Amino acid sequence: MCELLGMSANVPTDLRFSFAGLMRRAGTTARHSDGWGVAFHDGRDCQIFREKRAGAQSALAAALCDHPIRSPIAVAHIRRANRGAVSTANTHPFQRELWGRWWVFAHNGQLAGIKRWPLGQDRPVGTTDSEHAFCWLIGELRRSFGRAPGEAALCRAIARLCRRLDTLGTCNALLSDGRRLYAYCSSKLAVLTRRAPFGRACLIDADLRVDFAAETTPEDVVRIIATRPLTADEAWQPIERRSLAVYRDGELVFHDRAPRARRVSAAADPSHAAAAAAFARAG
Amino acid sequence: MCELLGMSANVPTDLRFSFAGLMRRAGTTARHSDGWGVAFHDGRDCQIFREKRAGAQSALAAALCDHPIRSPIAVAHIRRANRGAVSTANTHPFQRELWGRWWVFAHNGQLAGIKRWPLGQDRPVGTTDSEHAFCWLIGELRRSFGRAPGEAALCRAIARLCRRLDTLGTCNALLSDGRRLYAYCSSKLAVLTRRAPFGRACLIDADLRVDFAAETTPEDVVRIIATRPLTADEAWQPIERRSLAVYRDGELVFHDRAPRARRVSAAADPSHAAAAAAFARAG
Repeated sequence: MCELLGMSANVPTDLRFSFAGLMRRAGTTARHSDGWGVAFHDGRDCQIFREKRAGAQSALAAALCDHPIRSPIAVAHIRRANRGAVSTANTHPFQRELWGRWWVFAHNGQLAGIKRWPLGQDRPVGTTDSEHAFCWLIGELRRSFGRAPGEAALCRAIARLCRRLDTLGTCNALLSDGRRLYAYCSSKLAVLTRRAPFGRACLIDADLRVDFAAETTPEDVVRIIATRPLTADEAWQPIERRSLAVYRDGELVFHDRAPRARRVSAAADPSHAAAAAAFARAG
Repeated sequence: MCELLGMSANVPTDLRFSFAGLMRRAGTTARHSDGWGVAFHDGRDCQIFREKRAGAQSALAAALCDHPIRSPIAVAHIRRANRGAVSTANTHPFQRELWGRWWVFAHNGQLAGIKRWPLGQDRPVGTTDSEHAFCWLIGELRRSFGRAPGEAALCRAIARLCRRLDTLGTCNALLSDGRRLYAYCSSKLAVLTRRAPFGRACLIDADLRVDFAAETTPEDVVRIIATRPLTADEAWQPIERRSLAVYRDGELVFHDRAPRARRVSAAADPSHAAAAAAFARAG
């Protein structure tokens, strides 16, 4: 099991508060100790920090908590290895250039048989299911579109591809291209919106509080997505299972939900009900 | 004008001493203040740190000088912008995945007209000549070989491609794939070998000394390549102009030199003689 953290905002935003909470789960309050990584987008470019060690014990992760990097889109991941060795090459987020932009991908879950899915020229550097899935997805986008399509066509294509991945197991995933944050929820992702009037929040995993009113302007909108809620006193909402939610500038711009028949059967599945109850307790 | 630094070694090696000297030139002893970056290879993977600011004033660069990252191959660059805005996207080294490995490229010089050279699917994220040249080179390698060829064929192909780039202007460049460091010298690159018996060295740009005998084993071989010598008391050698030198595990494994006629005319070129004299003074 791994954990994900994503952010989409309408202004370059400091991720340190949420990131500090996630890093506590990387070896202190939880055992996601096999690697951590975070990507900060900067226009078409992005900057990625990754290490094959526990984030909670990392000097680099601590330095990132000391020195803010402000970005409108960020994706972070902490790893507890199940498939693939503990190595930098197997540490999320992964990145590939597509249409002159860096795309970033982080994933939680297992995708049985994904390595039999054929790839284009984008090839995995490490040995995880997740990177293979990302290379496949990027290859399919390249094959479908000669250049970047419009937002609606792109979101529909990504929803279709995520849904295909989801048939192989569990695909909780964050994908970003510097403009949009794509969050596919297979079983467990939560979302939180921060906008005026801003309040206070405290982390679940550390004795750290922040007063967002002092850190923001009334126009700021920040959307945070995480595997489990990171704060104890904010209104986290589960993202609907088997749906793709796409955020741009902190706002939801696309939401592709599973067909109704599948949604009903998902609700009726007792393992899902148990997971939903666990989710509610975690929040 | 930018400056380059590369390392190839037969054991994972700490680059901090040379890197600290280079960072001094990024805003203190020289004016390469428009961005800095360094890539550390780790098998097929690599880790890149880049910022669009002066390395001499960077907290991140300072942190890298405090916390060693040991790697057998590293490439660093400091930028003084001439073409392309000051931005992270225009900061070297650049990276692209090819044949399941991360390739890294840093360049010094200008390449007039390079943007008219057609690209495959690897597209620049920024606006520099250098990244366009890198995307072109990677695309040509993809086109020539379906998968990674043997060392000799690969080195010959890269030599041919660098020579084509060189016809457009100046192409002092470092390219690496995690196994080999490819150094193409168009006008100015120097190389230094450190092997037993190891001695002491002091930086030209900072009051920093090291006794390599205390830091190494007798089997270690470390090759350092730089635009200008970084230490005052070691035997730096210029790399022959219009040649590609390839290093693996610290050893020279391939050296492709320009045809004799071109070498003679290069030696007769007074601007080259002046540059050679300037190089000797810098050493």
